[in-house]
Amino acid sequence: MDTPQPIDTTHFLQQQLDAIVALLEKQEEEKSHFRTSASERHNPDVSIVVDEYQARLQNLLSDLHPADLAFLLESLPLDQRQTVWDAIKSELDGQVLLEVSDSVRQTLISGMEVEELASAASSLDTDEIADLAADLPKRAMLKILRSLNNVERTHLNTILSYQEHQVGALMDFGMITVRDDLNLWAITDYIRRLGKLPSHTDKLFVVDQNNVVKGVLPLQRLLTHAPSQNVAEVMVTDFVQFQVDEDTAHAARAFERYDLISAPVVDNLGQLQGRLCVDSIIDFIREKTDEDMLIQAGVEEDEDLFSSVWRSARNRSVWLLVNVATAFASTRIIDVFQDTILQLVALASLMPIVAAMGGNTGNQTSILIIRSLALGQITSANVRRLIKKELTLALLNGTLIGILVGALSWALYYDLALSFVIGAAMLINLMVAVGVGLCIPLVRYKLGKDPAVGASIMLTAITDSMGFFIVLILARTFLIGK
Amino acid sequence: MDTPQPIDTTHFLQQQLDAIVALLEKQEEEKSHFRTSASERHNPDVSIVVDEYQARLQNLLSDLHPADLAFLLESLPLDQRQTVWDAIKSELDGQVLLEVSDSVRQTLISGMEVEELASAASSLDTDEIADLAADLPKRAMLKILRSLNNVERTHLNTILSYQEHQVGALMDFGMITVRDDLNLWAITDYIRRLGKLPSHTDKLFVVDQNNVVKGVLPLQRLLTHAPSQNVAEVMVTDFVQFQVDEDTAHAARAFERYDLISAPVVDNLGQLQGRLCVDSIIDFIREKTDEDMLIQAGVEEDEDLFSSVWRSARNRSVWLLVNVATAFASTRIIDVFQDTILQLVALASLMPIVAAMGGNTGNQTSILIIRSLALGQITSANVRRLIKKELTLALLNGTLIGILVGALSWALYYDLALSFVIGAAMLINLMVAVGVGLCIPLVRYKLGKDPAVGASIMLTAITDSMGFFIVLILARTFLIGK
Repeated sequence: MDTPQPIDTTHFLQQQLDAIVALLEKQEEEKSHFRTSASERHNPDVSIVVDEYQARLQNLLSDLHPADLAFLLESLPLDQRQTVWDAIKSELDGQVLLEVSDSVRQTLISGMEVEELASAASSLDTDEIADLAADLPKRAMLKILRSLNNVERTHLNTILSYQEHQVGALMDFGMITVRDDLNLWAITDYIRRLGKLPSHTDKLFVVDQNNVVKGVLPLQRLLTHAPSQNVAEVMVTDFVQFQVDEDTAHAARAFERYDLISAPVVDNLGQLQGRLCVDSIIDFIREKTDEDMLIQAGVEEDEDLFSSVWRSARNRSVWLLVNVATAFASTRIIDVFQDTILQLVALASLMPIVAAMGGNTGNQTSILIIRSLALGQITSANVRRLIKKELTLALLNGTLIGILVGALSWALYYDLALSFVIGAAMLINLMVAVGVGLCIPLVRYKLGKDPAVGASIMLTAITDSMGFFIVLILARTFLIGK
Repeated sequence: MDTPQPIDTTHFLQQQLDAIVALLEKQEEEKSHFRTSASERHNPDVSIVVDEYQARLQNLLSDLHPADLAFLLESLPLDQRQTVWDAIKSELDGQVLLEVSDSVRQTLISGMEVEELASAASSLDTDEIADLAADLPKRAMLKILRSLNNVERTHLNTILSYQEHQVGALMDFGMITVRDDLNLWAITDYIRRLGKLPSHTDKLFVVDQNNVVKGVLPLQRLLTHAPSQNVAEVMVTDFVQFQVDEDTAHAARAFERYDLISAPVVDNLGQLQGRLCVDSIIDFIREKTDEDMLIQAGVEEDEDLFSSVWRSARNRSVWLLVNVATAFASTRIIDVFQDTILQLVALASLMPIVAAMGGNTGNQTSILIIRSLALGQITSANVRRLIKKELTLALLNGTLIGILVGALSWALYYDLALSFVIGAAMLINLMVAVGVGLCIPLVRYKLGKDPAVGASIMLTAITDSMGFFIVLILARTFLIGK
């Protein structure tokens, strides 16, 4: 306890990772050496080598925070991950399982016995067990449920009864409640007798006899006010609370806006049900933004960096197969105009440009709309102005890009009519693209669906086929007959 | 103070927004009504109408949190935004400017006098002024600097001396420091005399005579331990601290991992320089992920929902112009093979499919690599295994998609050789795409650049041109000569 041991977060973990990988590779090497030379040498016991390396590995892993262990596991290929997982002290198993990503958690759990899982869960709070519940085998879950007392079982069932996107699913039960007729001295005494406060306790919740939240008592006020004052005089009555069935995205925005650390969660009678803390909110924001980004790129669900090739292939091929379908559908149009292309083969290289630019422009619009929807900035009051603005913008950029592309086409083929057709097609396709980029997320949002899902694939399918169609129909009308 | 006034975060703000828009539109209407009928009626004073609406608007805005006002301003078109901004109490101006997005802040500041800006800044802490500094006109900044005392000016200069991505630029100075030879009673007494703790104070920092951080004293320990104990006995010595010049992304990961609320920031001598809090970290995570997502879609910088069309056009056209260039470059290949297309016009509709699928596949890979790099999961120890895995995956998915696309081509054109060429081209292009999707972010990261920037545009340019090239060269070799 003499000198501080600050964790050098920047390099420490990567060094640790390198050391572990080096150790595991050396172990493999030595083991294979023993095996190959076993007949010549005096039958050395491989298990001695294993034991020695196991001890060195455990030494490297000791004193690490569960979150750091989770990071190491996520960064290791499957076989090395299993070796490290076996070397981690079993009392940390529960915490580590909580910290790893969903996909990595599945690889870890799949290798564990029901007994091991139940004992790992025994060190966790009920809200933490709820986080794991979806990934646990039914038999393990039953065993865990049997080991809980009545209150814990009720808590667990409460959390599990809410949908993933609701505040109730993210809350914990680490709240401290007090009555408003006590004085601060009594509160301080109560806390001292508790001996320990749940993490992220920045305020106590003041409830009445019906468990309805009347106010909050920040620890700061407890520390800065005279001990003789009553809770009722000191508590804050103008506080933020959340409904159990409220959308977590709303709660996350409130945490960001009001810089909250913890807040009460109540039912529709105002009765205290649980507590929402900033650490859960950070995890939520990170997961949601990650998910949005992966969805944009057509990765269905978060992927373990070292998940099996088969698993990854399945995860990614769904999107690719959908793309094959839309790509074939949108290029069908080209076949209809085969004659047009044969008469003016330059179209074959100019069409893809018009199609691609449509996709890019529409994507810009849709991503900005998706983000503004996520921030709650788009309302019925301003949506019409927004649509007008985006279409004006499309007209402006479409004219600019249309002229540019027309000019470039002229420089390549010295065909003024062709340049005009390509420029006009570009302008029209950009207008279509922006219109579609606006519509898809807005309509999906209106229908109560996630505006980000499928936006880019539908957009690309439409802008591609429209791009081809507009170029070819204009070309057939204005160029071929002349 | 009798009844709690919880803020209904879900609907309240949107209702408020609708009410404001309705009010402003009604005002416009009445004003124009007065103007048009001014000659007929008995010259009514328009200013009475304006005053009345101004009062009603101020009534709607009163008691709103600065972050809520910021939300309202961001959701309003420019003219209405200005009206609302004028109606906001000037003592809140500084806080509101802090809360709005960069682009909206610029629209608000551009309409303000130097005097107004200086008085808005006078209500802010130095770290908050630093946040605004980049957007303030030089004259306003000079005026603000003159109004600060020496300590504040040093603080401000300290923060401004760090680069945007460094911890030092994000820290504040709201830390409370104590010595370890005091007992807890003395600390409690000291806090009570302070009267108020800075927000997000969950721990005090214990420093020695050289201002080196020796430990931290969480408020929880202060409340749960006997007042007679010394700080040295109670403080935590195994704590997380950050270097002033450390990358904020690292710090953000540490906050997520260790569930921190605040942490000391030190220089390389271990001397306390400031404090990093979870609210800044949440803002950082939100901004960084937003930025990454917008960059992927080719939006240069964050855009005000209602910025002028010209401004938006400029913001988005840069990317579009780059796209025009790459699109023309990659389709140049098609022109070289005009003869091939004329002999087999089906190629014109099949090439874009191969090109597009390459882009999609490469994008999946690159987005996963970018994310893993951001999470620090890719190290020299595992990068080779990762590359091997991705290429195996490409081989697998390429074979699957290749066979599928070949079969579909056969169904369309009944040409077995053509189907074979398209299927093979697809497999090859997917391998190329995954290779490029791996290389671009990894190489950019190795060179110390942001791996996300430009990844998708370079990728698409390469997969498009390679897609066209592979199809056409295979077709010329195996189909045309036969």
